[in-house]
Amino acid sequence: MSQAPAPRPTADLTEMLATRLPRITLRPAEPRYLEEPRGRYSAPSGMLALPRDTAEVAQIVAACGELGIGILPYGGGTGLVGGQVDQGGAMLILSLERMRAIRAIHPDENVLVAEAGATLAAVQAAAEGAGRLFPLSLASEGTAQIGGLLATNAGGVNVLRYGNARDLCLGLEAVLPDGRIWHGLRRLRKDNTGYDLRNLLIGSEGTLGIITAASLRLFPRPARRGAAMLVVPDPAAALALLTLAGGQIGAGIEAFELIGGAGPDFLREVMPEVRQPFATAPDWMVLIELGLGPAQDPAEALEQLFVAAHEAGLVEDGVIAQSEAQRAEFWTLRESIPEANRKIGAVSSHDIAVPLSSVPEFIARADAALAGMGDMRINCFGHLGDGNLHYNVFPAKGRSRHDYEALRPAIKEVVHDLVHALDGSVSAEHGIGRLKVADLERYGDPVKLDAMRAIKAALDPAGIMNPGAVLRAELRTGVTPRPGGTG
Amino acid sequence: MSQAPAPRPTADLTEMLATRLPRITLRPAEPRYLEEPRGRYSAPSGMLALPRDTAEVAQIVAACGELGIGILPYGGGTGLVGGQVDQGGAMLILSLERMRAIRAIHPDENVLVAEAGATLAAVQAAAEGAGRLFPLSLASEGTAQIGGLLATNAGGVNVLRYGNARDLCLGLEAVLPDGRIWHGLRRLRKDNTGYDLRNLLIGSEGTLGIITAASLRLFPRPARRGAAMLVVPDPAAALALLTLAGGQIGAGIEAFELIGGAGPDFLREVMPEVRQPFATAPDWMVLIELGLGPAQDPAEALEQLFVAAHEAGLVEDGVIAQSEAQRAEFWTLRESIPEANRKIGAVSSHDIAVPLSSVPEFIARADAALAGMGDMRINCFGHLGDGNLHYNVFPAKGRSRHDYEALRPAIKEVVHDLVHALDGSVSAEHGIGRLKVADLERYGDPVKLDAMRAIKAALDPAGIMNPGAVLRAELRTGVTPRPGGTG
Repeated sequence: MSQAPAPRPTADLTEMLATRLPRITLRPAEPRYLEEPRGRYSAPSGMLALPRDTAEVAQIVAACGELGIGILPYGGGTGLVGGQVDQGGAMLILSLERMRAIRAIHPDENVLVAEAGATLAAVQAAAEGAGRLFPLSLASEGTAQIGGLLATNAGGVNVLRYGNARDLCLGLEAVLPDGRIWHGLRRLRKDNTGYDLRNLLIGSEGTLGIITAASLRLFPRPARRGAAMLVVPDPAAALALLTLAGGQIGAGIEAFELIGGAGPDFLREVMPEVRQPFATAPDWMVLIELGLGPAQDPAEALEQLFVAAHEAGLVEDGVIAQSEAQRAEFWTLRESIPEANRKIGAVSSHDIAVPLSSVPEFIARADAALAGMGDMRINCFGHLGDGNLHYNVFPAKGRSRHDYEALRPAIKEVVHDLVHALDGSVSAEHGIGRLKVADLERYGDPVKLDAMRAIKAALDPAGIMNPGAVLRAELRTGVTPRPGGTG
Repeated sequence: MSQAPAPRPTADLTEMLATRLPRITLRPAEPRYLEEPRGRYSAPSGMLALPRDTAEVAQIVAACGELGIGILPYGGGTGLVGGQVDQGGAMLILSLERMRAIRAIHPDENVLVAEAGATLAAVQAAAEGAGRLFPLSLASEGTAQIGGLLATNAGGVNVLRYGNARDLCLGLEAVLPDGRIWHGLRRLRKDNTGYDLRNLLIGSEGTLGIITAASLRLFPRPARRGAAMLVVPDPAAALALLTLAGGQIGAGIEAFELIGGAGPDFLREVMPEVRQPFATAPDWMVLIELGLGPAQDPAEALEQLFVAAHEAGLVEDGVIAQSEAQRAEFWTLRESIPEANRKIGAVSSHDIAVPLSSVPEFIARADAALAGMGDMRINCFGHLGDGNLHYNVFPAKGRSRHDYEALRPAIKEVVHDLVHALDGSVSAEHGIGRLKVADLERYGDPVKLDAMRAIKAALDPAGIMNPGAVLRAELRTGVTPRPGGTG
């Protein structure tokens, strides 16, 4: 019943596909397609397909279906859970990087239609060029592509106000596992005609189809922006500050980031060029960003918030950005933390979410549990407004992550068990990929898992779409082998 | 291959279920469960099940699965497409009206957990009691229930700012067609652990499972509200006004409703008690509502908008509400239009959406096409901010809808063909139900339809969940008849 697609030698795969698809670029994949950023997963080699349009994607998918070849959908390659790496080297790597057109912009509708290979930065720039905002924003935006961002339902720093990637998508064009094209590029805000196939594909990590284009929501650009770095005594105070800010400022809050003391410390250690707002790194800071209308002054709103929060004992110190340059500095600090983390080298990283009111309890209990396991440093930061923390564990200063290899599984288990006990998620924004398949089996609802397996079997009966990601690879029984395939 | 579940005499059905479910209330359904509001669909009789908790719902679904009995999920009964009516009288009507608890409110998380039988008004009141806003709002909110609102992905007047029902739901508890309970009542803003089963159930109109409870998003209550009725020369001006307002006010726009001249005319004719802001009904009005923070004055913002719009020739006249009472009057007018429509009796009603920039073209072309078909009145109104119009066709004054029976199919076809040509939706917010199954087959994307059928067959292989709604009823081949069932 359960069996991964048989590994094939690359030459064999190439030959079969090249015969079947004479006009499509197929070539051995360069190293960058074979490794994920943290170096946890890599493939020995691979064959890369570079279609130029949706029809070619459909031909590739159909051919792979017939030949029984697994397809590895590859976006910008910035995923952190190994969804884009085929360790067996037997799948066809399918990159839509040549399909990067902005097909249309409708500023009066606040809609933009982009092909899957367009980078997030390109889409942001196109929106800006039309006087609009595409609010998805995350550290890898220069490389990450729309197709991958939707396939993984990316989050980032502006979810609080604008939602996750799925909330920013109005319609999709996609190739389904049978090689047919779904023309679902709607530009509608309301459309109740049948099941929500759009949201089913979004977040399915390429296991149910290949997104080839998307119509995306744009927004008016906030007329005035402002930001502040506020020092809070603890995470509970940061939460209370968020509620206070919600009452004072409402929908104008664009981001609300919690930054634990280790972040600035790490930056001082490995990226001293990053400017810091406080001479000594506070234990906890909040980076709050406002986007307001033309009649409102963000600095004034932040000043009022600071005064009220200070009186309530929620804020101890703070800096309100006095210029665009200073606002940019705050964000450089925030967005440099993942890079500092990579330089130091995490023992175990956790992309978790818990119900908002459980955030302080989670941090306190996780810190306490890990303190008893060894000498480690914890860098806890993230999107507090979404209850989403990156709770990452590092070696003590002067030691290496390799000293902790043996501890890693226990650390992850402690953190994830606690998240689960608090009714949280062990993958808030990074997805399941290959890294967390076992976690999903352990912590996921069994009824939902069975429903997922049934949906996967129904839409991809041959199991060719990113096999091994999200769900264990299975070649289904009862599927008639197709001509040329191995069944 | 295609075959509806065999109709059963009610007595037979009762007996079998009563034996199987001795502790669950089963009784003949009163007339209110057998008819939809417009009187287009009715059932001769029916058997009603009234479970008290989720476990009982699961028992009912399991029993119906074993016995091969179709289940008709029944919410508030306010649906407009016949999804809640079984004309054959052979299904079990399943109402969750006894399951109406507000299970929890977390004001600090902006989350509320409600059972499916809670009315929208009850959820709104509970949120208000906690100082929060549940923004879903529509004419039938006193009767419509959370389960039905989610199953149909209800829209309403505040979609522009807060989204459709699916955007307001963080998690679900549901009974799947195999009678098992999915415990998915998450309270998380980010959770990328597997396929989006939540959004698949939302909008599936009870054909993939029974929603038993939901965790819902709350929002801060806008500190200050304001509204205006503005007279615009035409729909294109109304759209330009929306863009202008977006630039001036941003996220503070809570609703933006277009009201064609027939609405006020109809109200004068059949509901003269409804107060009107203008002595003569303008051809086109916009009702705009703002929800702002404590530091902003909505009347001032509306005044500024009026001045700028008047200068640009977008607005001819207007009234800004000077009190809460006057704001309520504006909404009474807007929300009374459906009731006036019912009193007059539509020949054909259309709940359509087109891309925002195509709205003026749609109205002009539909008006022109219908003008050539006979003497009719058109009441066009709706949620312009969402591109969603209720484009309803009525008899000429003094004539009856029955005079137009023969014309109705042609009218619907003209309107829906035009919507389709403009890349729109023939069911923007009301769903497919039984009324629009053929429309979905005609206008829907065939690849999506096949995917929907595959998903339906995978999750509900026996076809017991609301058979005949959304998709044609099918008893699948290859399903082994279960003990006691007819297969």
